[in-house]
Amino acid sequence: MCVQMKAAVLYSGGKDSSLMAVILDKLGYDVELVTINFGKFDSSIPARKSAESLGFKHKVIKLDQKILADAVDMIIEDNFPNNGINHIHHTVLEILADDYEVIADGTRREDRIPKLKFSEIQSLEDRKNIQYLNLTGIGYKTINDTSERLFKLQKGESNIHNSSDYEMEIRVLLKEKGYDTDEIFPQHIQSRVIGWRENE
Amino acid sequence: MCVQMKAAVLYSGGKDSSLMAVILDKLGYDVELVTINFGKFDSSIPARKSAESLGFKHKVIKLDQKILADAVDMIIEDNFPNNGINHIHHTVLEILADDYEVIADGTRREDRIPKLKFSEIQSLEDRKNIQYLNLTGIGYKTINDTSERLFKLQKGESNIHNSSDYEMEIRVLLKEKGYDTDEIFPQHIQSRVIGWRENE
Repeated sequence: MCVQMKAAVLYSGGKDSSLMAVILDKLGYDVELVTINFGKFDSSIPARKSAESLGFKHKVIKLDQKILADAVDMIIEDNFPNNGINHIHHTVLEILADDYEVIADGTRREDRIPKLKFSEIQSLEDRKNIQYLNLTGIGYKTINDTSERLFKLQKGESNIHNSSDYEMEIRVLLKEKGYDTDEIFPQHIQSRVIGWRENE
Repeated sequence: MCVQMKAAVLYSGGKDSSLMAVILDKLGYDVELVTINFGKFDSSIPARKSAESLGFKHKVIKLDQKILADAVDMIIEDNFPNNGINHIHHTVLEILADDYEVIADGTRREDRIPKLKFSEIQSLEDRKNIQYLNLTGIGYKTINDTSERLFKLQKGESNIHNSSDYEMEIRVLLKEKGYDTDEIFPQHIQSRVIGWRENE
């Protein structure tokens, strides 16, 4: 085989982005897990530990805190997180597209945010001459089954210690500005990947 | 690992459905390639040969010719193949869902037909208590790159000897009824999988 093509997977330490990484790895890509951080709070630790537990390369990319601040302003104005989270995700993909030929994330069929529309994907791929992929072809039942089979998972209420989602730094900045983050982000259960599941 | 979960992949012998099969196989599913035939013309031979060349299990499932006949009537009325092909694909998935827990096909991001809408997938999964997946998260550039890397491909104008798409039996029935199939189905290049590409 010739030189492996590098693929960056936006990585939170959760099962969706881990599964995306596994698929690309098994298809022969040179996978680099990438976690974004805006310097507000080091939310990358859970992702780094998960990446290590699976043996993948992992990189934290620090981006301008203005991207986070703009998203938080949008969230405060909307009193709803969707547009702000999408703003971050779109901006991050635009930036990554300058450095990687193949970019992927773990968004799956049912996910509404963050999510790129078909036309946005076409535009990103054409303008930047890259390839983008995600898990939109796969539903939560299949992702759950497959993750349970492949990974050791640690489940718990999502918080700054077990997730590297964009949400974590958003929460920190919202709190700093005096907002009730539990109202904007309902509590949800987070499954963090903590290793490969051994064959039984 | 416990007993492998069986997954049926609708299989034409092309690179898309082959890639879907490879992904499920690598994720640990017990993959069974399934080619549909309506008894009008044995269009399953290219798919059977491709399946053999990759070492996957392959099964031809014969379905009622009325499904094909209804599709051809739709195509004649529309003078356009889309609704007829979608009719076949939807009917086939409904029938497969009675026998398999996991069903997949090779439809990719850009494909317009055959294609299930999000709401149709949800409905199919819920009513039949199955899981359905496809390649909607992946675009043609990534599929081409990956297929070139994984498979030996034989390219040629799509015809009844190199493809097991639904289109092949539709063409035979349309011709029998005196219609010009080249007008309804524009010629296109078909990449048939004829084996694994050896590492170089």
